Amino acid sequence: MRNDLPKGFLAGTAQAAFKKEGRQDLGVIFSQYPCVSAGLFTTNLFAAAPVQIDKAILSQGTPVRAIIGNSGQANSCTGEQGLKDCHKIQQEAGRLLGIEPNEVLLISTGVIGAKFKMEKWEKALPCAISDLGQKDAEGFTKAIMTTDAFPKFSSTEVKLSRGEARIAVMAKGAGMICPNMATMLCVCLTDAIMEKDEWQAMFNRAVNLTFNRVSVDGDTSTNDSILGLANGASGISLATADDAITFEKALKDILAQIAYMLVQDGEGASRVLHIDVSGAASDREAELAARAVGNSQLVKTAFYGGDGNWGRIINALGYSGAKLLPEKVGLVLCGIERFRAGQPVNDDREAELANLLKSRDIKIQVTLGDGPGSYSLLASDLGHEYVKLNSDYRS
Amino acid sequence: MRNDLPKGFLAGTAQAAFKKEGRQDLGVIFSQYPCVSAGLFTTNLFAAAPVQIDKAILSQGTPVRAIIGNSGQANSCTGEQGLKDCHKIQQEAGRLLGIEPNEVLLISTGVIGAKFKMEKWEKALPCAISDLGQKDAEGFTKAIMTTDAFPKFSSTEVKLSRGEARIAVMAKGAGMICPNMATMLCVCLTDAIMEKDEWQAMFNRAVNLTFNRVSVDGDTSTNDSILGLANGASGISLATADDAITFEKALKDILAQIAYMLVQDGEGASRVLHIDVSGAASDREAELAARAVGNSQLVKTAFYGGDGNWGRIINALGYSGAKLLPEKVGLVLCGIERFRAGQPVNDDREAELANLLKSRDIKIQVTLGDGPGSYSLLASDLGHEYVKLNSDYRS
Repeated sequence: MRNDLPKGFLAGTAQAAFKKEGRQDLGVIFSQYPCVSAGLFTTNLFAAAPVQIDKAILSQGTPVRAIIGNSGQANSCTGEQGLKDCHKIQQEAGRLLGIEPNEVLLISTGVIGAKFKMEKWEKALPCAISDLGQKDAEGFTKAIMTTDAFPKFSSTEVKLSRGEARIAVMAKGAGMICPNMATMLCVCLTDAIMEKDEWQAMFNRAVNLTFNRVSVDGDTSTNDSILGLANGASGISLATADDAITFEKALKDILAQIAYMLVQDGEGASRVLHIDVSGAASDREAELAARAVGNSQLVKTAFYGGDGNWGRIINALGYSGAKLLPEKVGLVLCGIERFRAGQPVNDDREAELANLLKSRDIKIQVTLGDGPGSYSLLASDLGHEYVKLNSDYRS
Repeated sequence: MRNDLPKGFLAGTAQAAFKKEGRQDLGVIFSQYPCVSAGLFTTNLFAAAPVQIDKAILSQGTPVRAIIGNSGQANSCTGEQGLKDCHKIQQEAGRLLGIEPNEVLLISTGVIGAKFKMEKWEKALPCAISDLGQKDAEGFTKAIMTTDAFPKFSSTEVKLSRGEARIAVMAKGAGMICPNMATMLCVCLTDAIMEKDEWQAMFNRAVNLTFNRVSVDGDTSTNDSILGLANGASGISLATADDAITFEKALKDILAQIAYMLVQDGEGASRVLHIDVSGAASDREAELAARAVGNSQLVKTAFYGGDGNWGRIINALGYSGAKLLPEKVGLVLCGIERFRAGQPVNDDREAELANLLKSRDIKIQVTLGDGPGSYSLLASDLGHEYVKLNSDYRS
C-alpha cells in the first residue's frame, strides 16, 4: 500500500523535545503551489490559540502554503500570550519558507494551559523546515502523536475523467475524543484542483459522516482541527458531475478509515462498538440514543470485560432523552436478538454470545420504533489502560 | 451514635441467594401503624417493574405498611412477567403480614434484564418476615447492597416543640449513580406525624438539594427509588411553622450525609470532588457547567491520579453547553487560583497544589461571569476499581 503524499506537497520533522526527549514532535507540511483550504474546528468555547488563528485565516479565503503541527503542548487556555506565540511562529516560518505569515496554519496538541516553550520552537523550527522533502505520510503523522498507540494515516488515488488525483490523510487522536468536531488533529491533502466553496462543502459532508460519528470518552477538546489543503498539482479538476461524486466518495472513505482507527486506538480500548440506531422519530432522536449508549461508562466497561450485559444498553436508551415507547424498543447484539418489543428474549444463546463478544468489532443494533430516523456511531470500550494513561498524563 | 429505627418500625432480613450464597440479600421493613408515604423515582423511561408498582401505589395516596427490598436482581426490562412477579410477592407478603397487597412497596437492585427467581423468593420471604423485630438500620441496609464498599445509613433525633421525632435513612448505591433521581435505593423512615402533601413536598425539596446533586458515572438507572414513610408513632406532629423548618432541615441534613457517602463510595472512587459553580447566567447554566466537569472522564481520572490538570476542567466548561464568555471564566482549585478572567495564573504553587490534591475532598470553584446563577455538585473520581467492578459485574 502506497502512503505517499499528493504531488507538490513536501514534509519535514524535527525533535523539539516539547514534552519528552528523543522523538520527532514538530512537523511541517509545505505545498509548492498555493492551496485552496477547508477546515472544521472544535465547538469548545475555549478554542486554543492555533484554532483561533486558523479560523481567521480560513475565513479570509486567502491561499495557504504550509501547516505546522506539534505535540506535547496544546497552547490552549494560554490567553494573549498564546496568540502572540502563534504569530511569532508564523512569522519565523514565513521568513524561512519565503511565504507570508498568514499562509501558515498551525495545529497543536498536548497539555492544556501550559505556555509554548518558545526557545525550543526557535531551535527546532529551522530544523523541521530544512528537513522538507518528498516524504510519505508517516513522519508528519508521528510528529503530532500523543498517547496514540499507532500513527493514523492513509493515502489513496482517485480515478477521475481526466486523470488521477491523490488524497492523503494524517491524524492523531486517542483520548479526549468526542465530536463535534471529532477530536483530534487531522490534515487532509489532495493534489486535485478544487473550488474553495465546493471543497469546504464536500469536506463538511464527509466529516459529518465520519469523524463526527465517533466517541471515545465524550470529551470535546479545545484543539480539535481538521484541515484540508488542495494544491491542484495533479492538474486534474472535477470536470464532470460524476467526478465530483467519485472524489467525494473517495474522500469520505478515506476519512472513515481514519475515523475507525481513532476509535480502535481509543486510549486503552480493546474493542470498537458499531452502534446503529434505526426506527427513531428523526435522525436527531436516533443520534441522542446512539450517543447515550456510546458514552455510557457502564456499557463501555461491560464490553471491555467481554460481558454481554445488554440491560445496560437498554438503561442508557432510557435516559438518553430520545423519544421512545419502551414497548417498541428492540436490541440485537452481535446478530443475536436480546430485546424485542420491550421484552427480554429468553433463550439459551448466552454462551454463543459470549464467544462473539471476544471479537474486536461489536455490532449493536437498536430499534426505537417505526420512525424514519437512523444514526450510526463508532465508540470504544473503556479499560484499565484509559485510567492509567489519564491519571498520570502530565507526568 | 445511635442507629435505631424510628418508633413502630420493625426490620427483618433473610438469605435468598439471589446472586451469591451466604449473605442477607432480602430485607423487610414493617410499620406497626399505617404510614403516610412519599417517593421519588428514576426518570429512566425503562422504569423497572418495582418502580412502576410503587408509583401506582403512591399516586393512589393510600396508606403503606411495608417495604420489601432485595439485591442481586433488578427485575428491570422484564416485561409483563416482571410485573406479575411483583404482584405475587405483594400478595404473599400481605398474607404473611396480615395487610393488603397494595400496602407493600418494593425496591430491587441488581443485573438488568434477568427475571426474578421466584422459587428463591418463596423460600426466603417467610424467613425475612419471621425475622421482623426491633433492629437498628444496618441489617436492612446491608440486604440491599451490591458493590457498595460499606453500608450507608444514619439516624437522627429531631427536637420539635411538642417532643422528639426520629428520622432514619438507609441507602445503597455505588455505580450507575447520576440523578435525576440520584441513583440508588433509599428508604427514609420517620415516626413524626406528617400530612401526605407536606411530606411529599418536603421530600422533593430535600432530595433536590442532596441526592439530585451527586454524580458517580453519569448513568441513571432503571431502578432508582427513594421512599419516605411516616408512621406517626412518636405522637409528635409539626405543630408550628418552626417545627416544619426544623424538621425539614434535619431531613435535608441526614439526606446530605447519605448523599456524600454515595459519592465517597462511588465504585473505585478515592476522592470526592466538591464542584461549586457561581456567576452563571442562571442556576440551570451553572448546573450544566458543574455536570460537565463532574461527568468528564478526563477530569475524574486526573484527580484519581492526584494530578491538578486544571486545563481539563476548563475544557469541560467549554463544551458543557453553559453560556459563558471565556474572558470572564475563573477557577480556584483547592483554594489556589489557577485561571482568572480567561487567562492562566502563572506562579510556583504547583508543588503546594500537588500536596493538597492528596486529600480525599477536592474543592473545585468555578466562576462563569457576573450572573446570579450557582450550583453545587458532588462527584467521584474514576479509578481502576471502577473498570474492574464493571467489566465483570455479572460474573
